Amino acid sequence: MANSQFDYVKSFESMDSCLPNCWIVVRIDGNNFHKFSSKHNFKKPNDDRALGLMTRAARSVMELFNDVVLSYGQSDEYSFVFKKGTKTYNRRSSKLSSVVVSQFTSSYVYHWKEYFPDLQLGYPPAFDSRTVLYPSDKNLRDYLSWRQADCHINNMYNYCFWNLVQSGSTKHEAQERLKGTLSSDKNEILFSQFGINYNNLPQLHRKGTVIVRDKVTYASRNALRKVRWLNGPPLCRSKAQSMLLALNIDIIGKQFWEGNPHILAA
Amino acid sequence: MANSQFDYVKSFESMDSCLPNCWIVVRIDGNNFHKFSSKHNFKKPNDDRALGLMTRAARSVMELFNDVVLSYGQSDEYSFVFKKGTKTYNRRSSKLSSVVVSQFTSSYVYHWKEYFPDLQLGYPPAFDSRTVLYPSDKNLRDYLSWRQADCHINNMYNYCFWNLVQSGSTKHEAQERLKGTLSSDKNEILFSQFGINYNNLPQLHRKGTVIVRDKVTYASRNALRKVRWLNGPPLCRSKAQSMLLALNIDIIGKQFWEGNPHILAA
Amino acid sequence: MANSQFDYVKSFESMDSCLPNCWIVVRIDGNNFHKFSSKHNFKKPNDDRALGLMTRAARSVMELFNDVVLSYGQSDEYSFVFKKGTKTYNRRSSKLSSVVVSQFTSSYVYHWKEYFPDLQLGYPPAFDSRTVLYPSDKNLRDYLSWRQADCHINNMYNYCFWNLVQSGSTKHEAQERLKGTLSSDKNEILFSQFGINYNNLPQLHRKGTVIVRDKVTYASRNALRKVRWLNGPPLCRSKAQSMLLALNIDIIGKQFWEGNPHILAA
Amino acid sequence: MANSQFDYVKSFESMDSCLPNCWIVVRIDGNNFHKFSSKHNFKKPNDDRALGLMTRAARSVMELFNDVVLSYGQSDEYSFVFKKGTKTYNRRSSKLSSVVVSQFTSSYVYHWKEYFPDLQLGYPPAFDSRTVLYPSDKNLRDYLSWRQADCHINNMYNYCFWNLVQSGSTKHEAQERLKGTLSSDKNEILFSQFGINYNNLPQLHRKGTVIVRDKVTYASRNALRKVRWLNGPPLCRSKAQSMLLALNIDIIGKQFWEGNPHILAA
Repeated sequence: MANSQFDYVKSFESMDSCLPNCWIVVRIDGNNFHKFSSKHNFKKPNDDRALGLMTRAARSVMELFNDVVLSYGQSDEYSFVFKKGTKTYNRRSSKLSSVVVSQFTSSYVYHWKEYFPDLQLGYPPAFDSRTVLYPSDKNLRDYLSWRQADCHINNMYNYCFWNLVQSGSTKHEAQERLKGTLSSDKNEILFSQFGINYNNLPQLHRKGTVIVRDKVTYASRNALRKVRWLNGPPLCRSKAQSMLLALNIDIIGKQFWEGNPHILAA
Repeated sequence: MANSQFDYVKSFESMDSCLPNCWIVVRIDGNNFHKFSSKHNFKKPNDDRALGLMTRAARSVMELFNDVVLSYGQSDEYSFVFKKGTKTYNRRSSKLSSVVVSQFTSSYVYHWKEYFPDLQLGYPPAFDSRTVLYPSDKNLRDYLSWRQADCHINNMYNYCFWNLVQSGSTKHEAQERLKGTLSSDKNEILFSQFGINYNNLPQLHRKGTVIVRDKVTYASRNALRKVRWLNGPPLCRSKAQSMLLALNIDIIGKQFWEGNPHILAA
Repeated sequence: MANSQFDYVKSFESMDSCLPNCWIVVRIDGNNFHKFSSKHNFKKPNDDRALGLMTRAARSVMELFNDVVLSYGQSDEYSFVFKKGTKTYNRRSSKLSSVVVSQFTSSYVYHWKEYFPDLQLGYPPAFDSRTVLYPSDKNLRDYLSWRQADCHINNMYNYCFWNLVQSGSTKHEAQERLKGTLSSDKNEILFSQFGINYNNLPQLHRKGTVIVRDKVTYASRNALRKVRWLNGPPLCRSKAQSMLLALNIDIIGKQFWEGNPHILAA
Repeated sequence: MANSQFDYVKSFESMDSCLPNCWIVVRIDGNNFHKFSSKHNFKKPNDDRALGLMTRAARSVMELFNDVVLSYGQSDEYSFVFKKGTKTYNRRSSKLSSVVVSQFTSSYVYHWKEYFPDLQLGYPPAFDSRTVLYPSDKNLRDYLSWRQADCHINNMYNYCFWNLVQSGSTKHEAQERLKGTLSSDKNEILFSQFGINYNNLPQLHRKGTVIVRDKVTYASRNALRKVRWLNGPPLCRSKAQSMLLALNIDIIGKQFWEGNPHILAA
């Protein structure tokens, strides 16, 4: 039963190395999470336990891959940014994408009980993942802005939708009410009908979560952080002596990037 | 904060649809399982609990994807065969590959305690995955033969290696002892030195595990099964009224395929 | 001026080997041939000199690549079928596709004067090319049927269109007249208005041209050919002692393939 | 003979759009030009007629594609640089690559007699082509430097080799003589043995040919050219009112790029 007559099949595997000198982004996304969140009674429009668990799983990915310089998450998705020059797995797209999503999922199930101590995980959830390349720093920043703007748009819609539903509308009525409304209209609905000032809602919900590595010393970092970042306690101390910081801040504007030039210099 | 100025970045995602009319195989593989198995004291050369958990996770994948017509696993790897004409996720390679590995991993962690009731999972494990296309039935059968021959070769080596180690050799000595030995040499070592007749070892170890769907009615299937398959109890009854059967049998020879023509006809 | 500091850029080239065990089809197509044919006053609906030149260029490709087992052409396109197991250029898609289209174009310009002795080539024409894989023999035959059915459909339309135009209609009127007509309607227009029996039109126009290699000896081949193929003189004697035959026959039905089993057996 | 039962085969064609925001380079290369140049008695080490014809063919490509901002050629190869943002053919790799090589080849055969008035083209030559992406300006410049350094290295070797051969050495002896020699050794051989000062050899041979579009007005351009470019007459006036200039100058250093900032700004 020598293997030699069969191993020609190995030649059917294809090479899928990512183009060099591009940012590699792996984005994971909940598979059928509409059903999953409803089965587990996630709070609407946002369940802080679920968001916390997502960030816990993302941290696990960043601990596995030192070359992930930043990750950004919202709702049931997370994006992981590998530095341009990463040699991890020889830049093989499917290998990067699969280990990221597997590590993320694994950690999500593993840590479930810490975030939902009173609720048994009903069944094993799944995520998908994909690899996308961005050649320039501007493309990468625009990608992240795209995801954070998406967070904002969805969050505003969801706050309106669920407040309408929780105050007696059917889901269909709420949908109809919001059809074609602008951002300003939704602000007005939230304020006049529910007394909610959108800008006072938690940054976690409005901005999502960005995780970065902090390379400065512990002391000076804490000092700096008070200035630059108002929320977000240190997440963990990784082996590489760097800290992972989870922050709920704006990454569309210049301020974040100018304050952290080491990220794009990676 | 309209999204329109950023969403051009979506065009950087690439299409990766699999060539039509090919068997799509997604193979998952333990990532750094050398460390994982040693950390959790897996029995050597085979830990039946770990193998059972792998097959439990594979079943979860087959329950999610009705178009997986067969899966084959050994050691810390499993291959999932999607039928040639599957339209699942429009045959997008990264989507298929990522959801399979995510579902597998999720189920592996979720069901851990059923297979290791006395041992806490130490940390969340990860798997990688890849998609490979096989144009012809012969290519597909040769692929599966390649994996099962690999199972046999590794298993025979591992039985020798670990028996040598457990009887006092260092790992280095065991390695040196086996260098360059043929299959017949290893058979002889096992028999003369450890009283082991290789052919009497469990089929689970020598053949790995193939999971198929049984489409016949329950009654007739049980009857048929006695004839065709001597081991392997029905694994579960899936929604599609079909049963998943986990079998430890030879899939290199003709017998399996002639007895189950519906698999390649999928 | 050592090259070593720059040659890292070679790593940006990607591998594009075709999946093994698939038919590789390279199809070339005239680039902007509407302008080219009008600039050179090609006869409408078909210019036999131009069709002859296309086939001359195709022959040149088949003489370069012994692994092309069949080619099929009509109008300003030609398809070249490489045998499933070809190792030419390690099955690199862009290499195969580019050398085929380059050789074709080169030969088209080189032999122009033999087919248009009284007409100077006005400017150098270009073709595009693409590589497509077909896993099964049925897929390949369906591909060729697709092209030959396309030949038939376009040819019937063009015969109607140009006869209408040549008998006084404007192009716009001819277009309008044919809008929505069925095959039977077009047959009727040709017959009642122009006295043309479509089935009596040259096979070259209705069927296009298929080029095959004849492997039998010269004598017996000639005998066989009288039986099997009524038209199409031997095209050339290639180095490999095989003959290239250009035929204007049906390749959609079974007859051609049953009479030439060696083609799919390649 | 409706086409509908066959046209599913169109779905087997794959999408191959180039990643946005990358420089697209299409490089063509003579296929088996060792034989071609020897069959046509090309002068060694360089045949200025053949080099002129290559550049004539390259010009034809740049006239077809306004988005080619620069091309660089040496020996039997030419590279065409499409601007980063080009939308030509929706950035489809095989379409770009195939039309470039086809247009190049076509023009090469078409213009042969202008460059070899006394020598009939013996047979139709072919070129291959490939598409390579470069994300950053630096990568692109390094690519072009790689090709120009290659020109220099080969040219110096070839001058030595052919002078040795033409002065009585066999090819094998010449090869042996040059094995392991450094650049300085070859300079010395040329000078002491053949009285050739390498730096006085034609720039056409030492630097290859770069073709650019000149966007300034005709008058001022001529003035500027005297300063910046000492050789290379205007090649042609293209439709876009811009001129194509063929220059034999260094493109590795900064000077060329600083003097022509519009190229990388394309």
